[in-house]
Amino acid sequence: MNRGLLLVLSGPSGVGKGTVCSELRRKQDDLIYSVSATTRAPRQGEVDGVNYFFRSREQFQDMIARDALLEYAEYVGNYYGTPRDFVERTLDSGKDIILEIEVQGALKVKEKFPEGVFIFLVPPSLEELKERITGRGTEAADVIDNRMSVAVEEMNLIRYYDYAVVNDEIDAACHRIQCIITAERCRKDRFLAGLAAKKETSEKA
Amino acid sequence: MNRGLLLVLSGPSGVGKGTVCSELRRKQDDLIYSVSATTRAPRQGEVDGVNYFFRSREQFQDMIARDALLEYAEYVGNYYGTPRDFVERTLDSGKDIILEIEVQGALKVKEKFPEGVFIFLVPPSLEELKERITGRGTEAADVIDNRMSVAVEEMNLIRYYDYAVVNDEIDAACHRIQCIITAERCRKDRFLAGLAAKKETSEKA
Repeated sequence: MNRGLLLVLSGPSGVGKGTVCSELRRKQDDLIYSVSATTRAPRQGEVDGVNYFFRSREQFQDMIARDALLEYAEYVGNYYGTPRDFVERTLDSGKDIILEIEVQGALKVKEKFPEGVFIFLVPPSLEELKERITGRGTEAADVIDNRMSVAVEEMNLIRYYDYAVVNDEIDAACHRIQCIITAERCRKDRFLAGLAAKKETSEKA
Repeated sequence: MNRGLLLVLSGPSGVGKGTVCSELRRKQDDLIYSVSATTRAPRQGEVDGVNYFFRSREQFQDMIARDALLEYAEYVGNYYGTPRDFVERTLDSGKDIILEIEVQGALKVKEKFPEGVFIFLVPPSLEELKERITGRGTEAADVIDNRMSVAVEEMNLIRYYDYAVVNDEIDAACHRIQCIITAERCRKDRFLAGLAAKKETSEKA
């Protein structure tokens, strides 16, 4: 059996990673979603173990010490990380998994999984990004300014990614990502690996 | 403006390249289709300038001499080739073009366009391929045997391609190819080249 695809969806703060990822989960039910751990407080409606594993700083630092995280980063005062175990087990079972993570974390995953598929979600424009960050209405002005300057820096990291998907419209962005998944499943190396695995299985039988 | 994508659809004799490509043209109307030149006789219903440019051996050899072909190959006694001019002009205009060509020709195109997207159409099985070649009912037994052994050799050339698309069902194969086109349009390098071109245009204005 072929190992699953590791897909990483990232992009600057405020670009709409969460919204696109939720819609993608609804549309593409053969895709496993990696739940991140975080020390930030839950936003309204967020559920522990579904949106994130909400952890205290002490709990999180214990996970770091046990090397139980594939990547972690501190971002605007909070830790975010990807539990390693679940990702490895999903890939080994032949299923595809998607990680929705911050730009810094994505690059750490890339060090460990260079064969992953790295998708950068791009805002239609920087003006639009500022509007989205402001529009959320949950942060103070200085927090917004901080988030905007972080976002602009993050945009420069697009060069380490495989794909750029413009989030002009959620359905359109989802469609592009679904196409990327289908295309990556058709990669020749993947096809040949599948053939070799099939041959091995039939020779054993 | 970005240069168009060069897509090459190839695969072993009898796999159904023509049928898939026709269906793709119907579904994806922003894709320009490269018409090949050939010295083989038209099959029933084939139209000169639409399915192929049907040429005499003398005319074809003149095109070779004038270097007017991007690739050409002799295959089961007939010449097949891709007029160069039309491909170059289409790409320069920013439009995507698809070439449906034999496996040998595709590899010659790859020498000249390593940045092209090379898609190998795969039969569901070799048994299925033989059935399709036989089922066409227009060739003698020794011609069928010859085509089968050529097809098996051609299958080995899949390693030079980017994608493997199984032609189990025409609609499904078309969908996969359409996804590959969408995904390739989202490639980060293409996105950044587009940004750079836009910036240049606005600085000139």
